[in-house]
Amino acid sequence: VRTRLSTRERSEQLLAIGAELFATRPYDAVSIDEVAEIAKVSRGLLYHYFATKREFFASVVRAEATTLLRVTEPNPALPVTEQLTSGLDAYLDYALRHRNGYLLLHRGAVAVDEKIREIVEDCLATQRQRILAVLHGVQQPSAATELAVRGWLAFVIAVCLEWLEEQTVSRTALRDLLATTLLAAVDHH
Amino acid sequence: VRTRLSTRERSEQLLAIGAELFATRPYDAVSIDEVAEIAKVSRGLLYHYFATKREFFASVVRAEATTLLRVTEPNPALPVTEQLTSGLDAYLDYALRHRNGYLLLHRGAVAVDEKIREIVEDCLATQRQRILAVLHGVQQPSAATELAVRGWLAFVIAVCLEWLEEQTVSRTALRDLLATTLLAAVDHH
Repeated sequence: VRTRLSTRERSEQLLAIGAELFATRPYDAVSIDEVAEIAKVSRGLLYHYFATKREFFASVVRAEATTLLRVTEPNPALPVTEQLTSGLDAYLDYALRHRNGYLLLHRGAVAVDEKIREIVEDCLATQRQRILAVLHGVQQPSAATELAVRGWLAFVIAVCLEWLEEQTVSRTALRDLLATTLLAAVDHH
Repeated sequence: VRTRLSTRERSEQLLAIGAELFATRPYDAVSIDEVAEIAKVSRGLLYHYFATKREFFASVVRAEATTLLRVTEPNPALPVTEQLTSGLDAYLDYALRHRNGYLLLHRGAVAVDEKIREIVEDCLATQRQRILAVLHGVQQPSAATELAVRGWLAFVIAVCLEWLEEQTVSRTALRDLLATTLLAAVDHH
């Protein structure tokens, strides 16, 4: 049975299928035919939305990066520490509930090509700028703080990837570990 | 002029050339012919040492991982904080003086294949175990501390890769940032 979806719904459906397949397998092991089959659409319709497999993959990665940035947008009305903890809560929520997207952004997408890596790099750069803005406002951060925030984001990703495999600590303990580490890394200077 | 080298010297020479080429270019852009040409040996001699290009690459990565682990071996005669700072000094020394090897282990090798990633993963696992042993001796660390050490190693790598591009902070400031961050991440629990 072919479900009638709007253009936007159809596109979102295809991107969600892509996120799942690409997150759980290497790029070369995913075929456009399989995506079309799962979505119950023709191969032609899929190519109508996305010109090439590479383009489809880039769209999947871009959609996940956009979602991650949207849900973790800081609320400048809150005090700094609350912006940090609520940002981390939203981030961990995303990692848990969009597990495929999280794995795709931080594991699968890295290995494919320069253009894809750029989408992920831009997403990380936006996160770094936001964190620096929360901590420092419009003031220019020190070089050490810039390095610390870059390192901390790698810390967060490494810890989350491991935690998604096996949740050996509570979500609150994880959030506190991440927050404490950031404040210590930047406080120091 | 073909230089006469011992088997071991020859092998080390080839591995050093490999580290340089593979660190600065994607795997596919390095040819065995070029390695042989730079070393002034025949292609046949190179294949005598390393059966395939993949095998040669794996040997280069393994040699760099071995060197990194050797130079950063902790000295258990020292107090904990000194083991940490002298270990970090040795680590930063390696990153600066074996820049190609460092880039290869932490950037180039990641993208190639599962077997190569395993060599790097084993090297990271040894570093984590050593750090946990320095901090906790034979005691079982908490799950949070295990996560923290894993995250911290990713922090170190991300910061060092950026710092090797542009040394915006002094080496001492960098070492202190890394040490402080580790102690804060694990102290918390």
